[in-house]
Amino acid sequence: MPEKAVIRNIHLTLIRYSHYDFAPMKRVPSITSPIISITRKASKSLYRQVYEGYRKAILEGSLRAGQRVPSSRVQAAELQVSRIPVLNAYAQLLAEGYFESRVGSGTVVSRSLPERSGAGQAGRETSTKRTSTRRAISKRCAKLPARERFFAGRGLGPFLASQVSSEHFPLRIWNRLVTRHARRTGARTLDYGDPMGLKELREAIAGHLRTARGVRCDASQIVIVSGSQQGLEITARVLLDAGDRLWIEEPGYAYARGVFEFSGCKIVPVPVDEEGLNVASGVKKCRNARAALVTPSHQYPLGVTMSASRRLQLLDWAESNRSWIIEDDYDSEYRYESMPVTSLQGLDRNSRVVYIGTFSKVLFPSVRLGYIVAPEDLVERFLAVRFAMDIGPATFHQAVLADFIREGHFSRHVRRMRAVYAERRSVLIQCIQEELGARVEIGGAQAGMHFCMMVKGISDREIAERAAARGITLVPLSRLYYGKAMRQGFIVGFGSTPVEQIPGAVRELRNAMAN
Amino acid sequence: MPEKAVIRNIHLTLIRYSHYDFAPMKRVPSITSPIISITRKASKSLYRQVYEGYRKAILEGSLRAGQRVPSSRVQAAELQVSRIPVLNAYAQLLAEGYFESRVGSGTVVSRSLPERSGAGQAGRETSTKRTSTRRAISKRCAKLPARERFFAGRGLGPFLASQVSSEHFPLRIWNRLVTRHARRTGARTLDYGDPMGLKELREAIAGHLRTARGVRCDASQIVIVSGSQQGLEITARVLLDAGDRLWIEEPGYAYARGVFEFSGCKIVPVPVDEEGLNVASGVKKCRNARAALVTPSHQYPLGVTMSASRRLQLLDWAESNRSWIIEDDYDSEYRYESMPVTSLQGLDRNSRVVYIGTFSKVLFPSVRLGYIVAPEDLVERFLAVRFAMDIGPATFHQAVLADFIREGHFSRHVRRMRAVYAERRSVLIQCIQEELGARVEIGGAQAGMHFCMMVKGISDREIAERAAARGITLVPLSRLYYGKAMRQGFIVGFGSTPVEQIPGAVRELRNAMAN
Repeated sequence: MPEKAVIRNIHLTLIRYSHYDFAPMKRVPSITSPIISITRKASKSLYRQVYEGYRKAILEGSLRAGQRVPSSRVQAAELQVSRIPVLNAYAQLLAEGYFESRVGSGTVVSRSLPERSGAGQAGRETSTKRTSTRRAISKRCAKLPARERFFAGRGLGPFLASQVSSEHFPLRIWNRLVTRHARRTGARTLDYGDPMGLKELREAIAGHLRTARGVRCDASQIVIVSGSQQGLEITARVLLDAGDRLWIEEPGYAYARGVFEFSGCKIVPVPVDEEGLNVASGVKKCRNARAALVTPSHQYPLGVTMSASRRLQLLDWAESNRSWIIEDDYDSEYRYESMPVTSLQGLDRNSRVVYIGTFSKVLFPSVRLGYIVAPEDLVERFLAVRFAMDIGPATFHQAVLADFIREGHFSRHVRRMRAVYAERRSVLIQCIQEELGARVEIGGAQAGMHFCMMVKGISDREIAERAAARGITLVPLSRLYYGKAMRQGFIVGFGSTPVEQIPGAVRELRNAMAN
Repeated sequence: MPEKAVIRNIHLTLIRYSHYDFAPMKRVPSITSPIISITRKASKSLYRQVYEGYRKAILEGSLRAGQRVPSSRVQAAELQVSRIPVLNAYAQLLAEGYFESRVGSGTVVSRSLPERSGAGQAGRETSTKRTSTRRAISKRCAKLPARERFFAGRGLGPFLASQVSSEHFPLRIWNRLVTRHARRTGARTLDYGDPMGLKELREAIAGHLRTARGVRCDASQIVIVSGSQQGLEITARVLLDAGDRLWIEEPGYAYARGVFEFSGCKIVPVPVDEEGLNVASGVKKCRNARAALVTPSHQYPLGVTMSASRRLQLLDWAESNRSWIIEDDYDSEYRYESMPVTSLQGLDRNSRVVYIGTFSKVLFPSVRLGYIVAPEDLVERFLAVRFAMDIGPATFHQAVLADFIREGHFSRHVRRMRAVYAERRSVLIQCIQEELGARVEIGGAQAGMHFCMMVKGISDREIAERAAARGITLVPLSRLYYGKAMRQGFIVGFGSTPVEQIPGAVRELRNAMAN
């Protein structure tokens, strides 16, 4: 049979290779006493027992490099087993390089194995667990804050931001699309897809962004990512080197800032006031920053909308300074008192804005889909970075989401949720005003799924601790400052709390603030 | 209604804010001639036309900061429309900061808007497209190689590596699991999941790795990622800083190397011979490297398996030098002439090995699921980096894959594919030996879905070019060297080529090599 012949041929080549680098012959005693034992009662095959017995003996140092191994015939007789499992075990040990075989000298323990001493091996086994000192990792990683195992899970109380009302998601429709695509999945969709993302989805998103967000874009500029975090990560890599300076909003979103800190960027905190990022202050602090990271639609955490004049000032700065603007439009879909404010990207005439959005808040977090709108001339560089990071996004749910948007379910869902959140928001504001009155001031409630509740003359961290004791997680505003905290307050989310639970939750909050 | 009252209250606050920073009053003429025009035939609402008309006039500079806006009554009369759309448009322009209104002075174009000149604006519109010079991006990104838009797609010929036989994937079973999970999906699964990955999947993977790969691990050490590329990315961040030295295999896998180069690591290429990475040579070149990146089961591209002695040498080096080993076990499931060789991680007694695997090759590429096995004491740091990069993996297909493994479909599929690939491999080797004979030498065919075909006295890039003209993509071995190419040859994949197409493909290859 030619096939067999070919394989044998290769195998011979292998064995020839393994001889290429011999140490000078030393006199080493051959193995006399039985080195391995087997049991017929074990669930392991005889072959496996012989193989593992030898391997263990070699690794633990009880068999030494160059020691002659009994012939398979002798070993089989010693163990009182047939010769086949012994032959198979020897072949495996040869293939893996524990044994070597040489014409004339039979099979020996591989001479190139480093020395192992039995005692040393046994002692080393648990060394990691014993050492209490931390082993050296990268400096950049050592600086990263520790993470809770379960991120933003349920059970964190009624006021956590970035929580969506999952009960309102049209799961029946979504699952119908999932099932439909499962039926349609063919061999083609199993292959690597376009690293930029599925064309149908990119077209659907471009269409949505043009009409709903005033973004000037074409599907070819869209990069599908796993959420805004990955969007920021890719953007940071395309635009910034370690040491480059970046304007961030003060206070701002710590996870976004973290992406740039991890890249080694120098952070320039620029204060946010009621009109958004104070551009003049940024220019004064560091005119030559390479980029600015902003949330103009609904600033996180203060909730303010960047005014038209600040938008134009920022664009002018970017243009004259050849800097970039990174617009994180994380929850712009919901706006309550006016029409949605169009994106900063849509005002830009010089392609200086990278626009980033996510479906985590408007659909559901575990879908892990978001997008970047890259400037036209940088699309190819975004592609290169996206590919280098993780090849590309999974295909299946991109196709599901494309249909969800194209068939109108997406806009219906957004309309419906706008009403749901609007109700929760106004009930929450009303309850807060009734229960807490003048002790707090609400800001940034025009959009999104959270607002900011300022307090005065009291430590927000202290209240947060007291609230935590009552099972209410509150994120203190003072924690979201990069530098010194200028205001005290809380991020109050209302995405996941049903209307009927709000009055009780606010009473609990009042009690936490009182005692 | 209390709700309305609350909202009005906030709105008033908003307007109050917008007054906080006025420029000194200047005399600016009020608007006299009609600045906007509307048409009743347009699909846009009257409100939208008024809003956009003003916005455009302001952005283009035909309306200047401080100019008085006609009252809504006057404007409505001028346009011959009802007052409601004008009032709505004015409210939006006020909310966005294009207008400002002040007791006593009526509504004016916002004074804080930067100067816009009509001519300048029009000229700037197309500036990006006109400038042929590239705009400044990060140096690290500028160095990244350009990417083909479609990665490893079909139609690249019969010999491309990393291609799987998608037709053999049990899609019916997979899709049944998808449909089952679609029915089961509840609000809980829509929430953010564990950043480390779904517990059920991590347990299934740990079980598989312990038995099939001899990996010593527990589910708590598994980090679910989107494939080996992201696995390498996360590992690089945990372990290495810019400037740290890393041993890589020479020749080696360029995309993996790229992850570390992008991080700013210094690459130390260490030659690979028939026993795998030459550890002694690595020690001689740079003993103090922080880490070594290896593919011990089936070296990419040469296909050799790292010998037992090299494995032990490498582990000894890592232990004595406090360095890390990154084991990329990208296609270890298929082994043809012996039992699978257990992982390097399984030999390690000091938790110095980070083990990375992927489902891209054993299931299908677009599933985008892989895993890291992190050393126990570093789990928390891997979690921190994973979270910082992109929060966590999408939940749905993790659940599907967990069932696929637990219900035995995974091991059945692997067994079946081992037979399929074994046949393709032996037919391919036979055809190459018949058609090309002594002109080539095959190496590294013991495992995986590709082997290496060496050529002598001829440029592999030249042959690759000729083959490309015949529609056959061949990856030249010489391209996979970081330094000077020491051997010429090709990576020959057989994952996606049915047996009956192999003889013809090899004849084509012979013709490409002949002329």
